[in-house]
Amino acid sequence: MTKTIAQWDMFEVELTGPSEGNPFVDVTLAAEFRQGGRVVRVPGFYDGAGVYKVRFMPDNPGAWSFVTRSNIAGLDGQTGTVEVTAPRAGNHGPVQVANRFHFAHADGTPFLSFGTTCYAWTHQPLSEQQKTLGTLKKARFNKIRMGIFPKDYPYNVNEPLHDIYQRGADGELDFDRPNPEAFRHFESQVAALGELGIQADIIMLHPYDRWGYSGMSEEQDYRYFAYATARLAAYHNVWWALANEYDFMLDTKPMRQWDRYFHIIEENDPYGHLRSIHNGDPKANYDHRKAWVSHVCIQHWDVKRTLEWRAAYGKPVVNDEPEYEGNITEAWGNISAEELVNRFWTTTLRGGYAGHGETFRHPDDLIWWAKGGELRGEAWKRIGFMRDLLEEDARNGFEPIETGMRFAGRVSAARDGDTTIIYLGEHQPEIWPYGLPKDDGGYQVDVIDTWAMTVTPAERVPAPENHPVRHGAVVLKTEPDAAFAVKLPVKPYLAIRVRKK
Amino acid sequence: MTKTIAQWDMFEVELTGPSEGNPFVDVTLAAEFRQGGRVVRVPGFYDGAGVYKVRFMPDNPGAWSFVTRSNIAGLDGQTGTVEVTAPRAGNHGPVQVANRFHFAHADGTPFLSFGTTCYAWTHQPLSEQQKTLGTLKKARFNKIRMGIFPKDYPYNVNEPLHDIYQRGADGELDFDRPNPEAFRHFESQVAALGELGIQADIIMLHPYDRWGYSGMSEEQDYRYFAYATARLAAYHNVWWALANEYDFMLDTKPMRQWDRYFHIIEENDPYGHLRSIHNGDPKANYDHRKAWVSHVCIQHWDVKRTLEWRAAYGKPVVNDEPEYEGNITEAWGNISAEELVNRFWTTTLRGGYAGHGETFRHPDDLIWWAKGGELRGEAWKRIGFMRDLLEEDARNGFEPIETGMRFAGRVSAARDGDTTIIYLGEHQPEIWPYGLPKDDGGYQVDVIDTWAMTVTPAERVPAPENHPVRHGAVVLKTEPDAAFAVKLPVKPYLAIRVRKK
Repeated sequence: MTKTIAQWDMFEVELTGPSEGNPFVDVTLAAEFRQGGRVVRVPGFYDGAGVYKVRFMPDNPGAWSFVTRSNIAGLDGQTGTVEVTAPRAGNHGPVQVANRFHFAHADGTPFLSFGTTCYAWTHQPLSEQQKTLGTLKKARFNKIRMGIFPKDYPYNVNEPLHDIYQRGADGELDFDRPNPEAFRHFESQVAALGELGIQADIIMLHPYDRWGYSGMSEEQDYRYFAYATARLAAYHNVWWALANEYDFMLDTKPMRQWDRYFHIIEENDPYGHLRSIHNGDPKANYDHRKAWVSHVCIQHWDVKRTLEWRAAYGKPVVNDEPEYEGNITEAWGNISAEELVNRFWTTTLRGGYAGHGETFRHPDDLIWWAKGGELRGEAWKRIGFMRDLLEEDARNGFEPIETGMRFAGRVSAARDGDTTIIYLGEHQPEIWPYGLPKDDGGYQVDVIDTWAMTVTPAERVPAPENHPVRHGAVVLKTEPDAAFAVKLPVKPYLAIRVRKK
Repeated sequence: MTKTIAQWDMFEVELTGPSEGNPFVDVTLAAEFRQGGRVVRVPGFYDGAGVYKVRFMPDNPGAWSFVTRSNIAGLDGQTGTVEVTAPRAGNHGPVQVANRFHFAHADGTPFLSFGTTCYAWTHQPLSEQQKTLGTLKKARFNKIRMGIFPKDYPYNVNEPLHDIYQRGADGELDFDRPNPEAFRHFESQVAALGELGIQADIIMLHPYDRWGYSGMSEEQDYRYFAYATARLAAYHNVWWALANEYDFMLDTKPMRQWDRYFHIIEENDPYGHLRSIHNGDPKANYDHRKAWVSHVCIQHWDVKRTLEWRAAYGKPVVNDEPEYEGNITEAWGNISAEELVNRFWTTTLRGGYAGHGETFRHPDDLIWWAKGGELRGEAWKRIGFMRDLLEEDARNGFEPIETGMRFAGRVSAARDGDTTIIYLGEHQPEIWPYGLPKDDGGYQVDVIDTWAMTVTPAERVPAPENHPVRHGAVVLKTEPDAAFAVKLPVKPYLAIRVRKK
């Protein structure tokens, strides 16, 4: 019987095999999916209780056949077919790098990353997890950073819903035996996010651990990466984040290990989902130029430097921690909503992508950044407004532009197609002429109040006279030529949008 | 007859000589001032109408003698004596570099630079200049950037009070003949600033010119530097700023010329007043490591980088343009008062010094940054509060400290002697433990609201538990050890001051 699924959905082959010994280590399993002469090698995995699975995400419609490969006779040489239809509405396929510094879904739909962070939300009580999904449904985030392992950290000390590895007879975690139940639960939430159109930016390792996961051996780590990749790669909305703050583990996991983790993902993810790695110390960025890194993940508060990171790495820049809205003790988690929204606009209008987090103290430690649940701040709505607004004009990605030497780097400006947006941030001029059209016809010009979430047709006023600057034989100009200027209320966090009609 | 003056005041030798030909070019004049075996060579200058002067600022009390040297017989070999008494109250002597990254007066009094900018204030109508001095008397700035030449720039187009060079019979400026009247006026205002305890940071050249001063020949420039130095060096409160935005003149004044300007100042200023040079493009900093540069002058908005500039140049860092409070069109002149004050605190608590400017549009273009007059903003009061507050504890200069890896660079903190100040800037935690004492005895701890200008004894609360971070064999700590934390109102721009009692 041929099963029918939609393109970029998941097709699962289920097989029965041995449960004795340690199948996680002893049994190899893969399948070769074919369409014409093309072969896609897909790793399988042991799901416990004698059940083996191979998961496949077809990237092309039509008929596919498969044959399994295993070191166990009963699992080897199994065959079948699958008929792939057009994608379901809303499934645009995995997100990939597009136009060097940007992202797009596989079907070409631009993906402007507006991420948030809930490190351990899948480890909270199920009612809390439902709340998180409900919140995500109303918020406009399209990416979420979340760990496979639970987290032990201030404000974040409750026991997880599941052990990620099985416990032996001695009650100790056995890091040679993953706990399929934990993975199945995690995957169900990845799938739920997929239904909401949200990318699961899956954090593989982190140092904030009291259970021992961060202390697994090199070999155990490698097996963990292969296992998790085999289980998760067929979800269309997966991104691989090798770590949260990898550099705080360099003493026990040296750099060659991090490189190898990337390789193992590449070996086991036939779809080439996005891969990156996140730093703690701002001076300890991984070398994102390495070929196996798809995009830059960074933690840095000084978002005006986004252009430097683009230049240094030549890849999309995602600043997942430009600090978080909140009031906790830690300095990475206590900036105002205004400042976080400001950092989003500054980052994006310099050609990068920013990430949200929320860290308000709570009597029961119910903090979004770790546990999900409810959003209590003010930034998320403005970030949603920003996403909706930018998506109206997104084509190839907003590329940063210079609007005149005299203020290079002071304000942020970017263009996508015929739309230019100039974000003034902390600057609050009465009128603004820079980067505006040199002619007065055929433009729609709006003033955007990024905090109040309003878009207002701009009041045009004469551009200031172009005052010559003389020195020696050379005449500089103090103003770029502009056909008009825009009158502004004197307040921070404004943007000017110019569209060609 | 022996004249008596106080140390660091100015002693002037006046001589009569030829007025025919071009004495500015033809006549050489200097004096050797002696005290015991020590000789200080002091250049003289022509003051017009056959009058020649040599100005001397003694740096040591007691008897000094002098003899003049000239290529004109009547000006050569003139001798005299001067008796130098202890300094007048309030004259602490010229400001010099102290403790590598800081400044102090010659008598050892720490000088924490709190500068402002009024580029062309000495070129405004005299009534406006009086207003400027009145404003400076009530404000707490102790340095002012001001140009010898007038300025032609948007909002800044009126004719100057004096031509800086004389006009010939054809009405054209003769760049071989300085106008002594203009210099005498300029000097009178330098002296007036000296009486107010304010350093005159004298800008020698700039590109914003419609009269031709910026187009003088190389030789004329060199003579100008020698002449101005001979006239001005004996004022105790002089700093030399070779340019405003020197890099915008590099096409006609190449780098070797800028180096030579420094040398000419060194040759003609026997007191070694501070010397620096100011950039326009943030990427075009002069190489402040050069031996003849006393301190770093910089224009940059990204003040959290102050540590980088200290490291790059190893000298005091003065960021004279961290952008200005105002609402003009230009992006360097339209940040809020809150943001400018924030940049002052951030800069200073990272071991640098910031500069103020005010650029509010005005119907008559009366803008402090160019013309002086009245302050209309809100930053200057807070900067005065900041100066008074820091001077209470200043000994060797506030040196930046790290208060824990987890937020290195996020907040600003510095220590001078037994006083530590932690400036939180945009961070607004409910409680703060980092960088606080490890024991609970003998400290006075205050919370400073840098905007409201209040100092309040801190409410101490238990420090958060030191949550261990486990990974592998290593135990990291999330919090530095602190004996207590400080409870804070959740708002930006707070600082915590810890004094050893």
